[in-house]
Amino acid sequence: MDSSSITPFVESTTNVFEMMLQLPVTIGKPEIKKNPDPSHDVSGIIGLSGDIEGLVVLSFPTATAERVVSLFTGESLDASNPDFADAIGELVNMISGGAKAKFEGKSISISVPSVVVGSGHTVYGKKDMKGVSIPCSCDVGDFSVEVSMIQWAAAKA
Amino acid sequence: MDSSSITPFVESTTNVFEMMLQLPVTIGKPEIKKNPDPSHDVSGIIGLSGDIEGLVVLSFPTATAERVVSLFTGESLDASNPDFADAIGELVNMISGGAKAKFEGKSISISVPSVVVGSGHTVYGKKDMKGVSIPCSCDVGDFSVEVSMIQWAAAKA
Repeated sequence: MDSSSITPFVESTTNVFEMMLQLPVTIGKPEIKKNPDPSHDVSGIIGLSGDIEGLVVLSFPTATAERVVSLFTGESLDASNPDFADAIGELVNMISGGAKAKFEGKSISISVPSVVVGSGHTVYGKKDMKGVSIPCSCDVGDFSVEVSMIQWAAAKA
Repeated sequence: MDSSSITPFVESTTNVFEMMLQLPVTIGKPEIKKNPDPSHDVSGIIGLSGDIEGLVVLSFPTATAERVVSLFTGESLDASNPDFADAIGELVNMISGGAKAKFEGKSISISVPSVVVGSGHTVYGKKDMKGVSIPCSCDVGDFSVEVSMIQWAAAKA
């Protein structure tokens, strides 16, 4: 697995959280996605297409997501509020867009985000996608960024 | 709202279920997506980009999804099996690909599918996307196809 494909997502996550939320993020050791897949409460999902096909999944426990959305929007929003999902979608959109800009010479499209809210859900990509989970930690809790790609080797610089 | 943007998804869903599962599908009256959004157990999600930006979400109750996957794969697979998610992803991919082919003169990319498994989850698109839910019924149960688009008017033929 090629760490140069992970670095853009690590850097972009750190940048977005620092710039938009004034939250420094500590990045743990990226790991090959576990089997069985971990379960989440709130997930923002973006599809990548073009030179790199894959998925970016930004996932939180509910309490952490609520604190993050509160910092992002300046409002206290319940997870059932559509503005809450919109904020999570915007965060995964910024992280994916920032990472995309760091893949020089690649033409990558990012899809509109979808946001899943529901305790203990699991997000699966295609079985033949290689996935890496990036554990992240900040003052309001832990979260993860999962990046999965088809033909991972083709994503090498 | 423009029914010509919904028809490709209705036709493609019917085709995929008849061809791949030998299951005739009865299509109910498409409705503007409800607020609050309905909850689901199993959802296959595809992002659309290019001339049409949006999301396609194929959602089932668990028991219906398990019967559909069993007909599709010829195997009895539990919802926690990664092959189960792969099968749901392939179905939403076929439905979206079939619908895409019916939008003549439009350049549309479809993302890799993601599949969410978890009782009672809700899938949100962006707040500014118009969404329509297409209720479907077949011998093994009811399911839905939700189609959401940004700038719905631009999707007119």
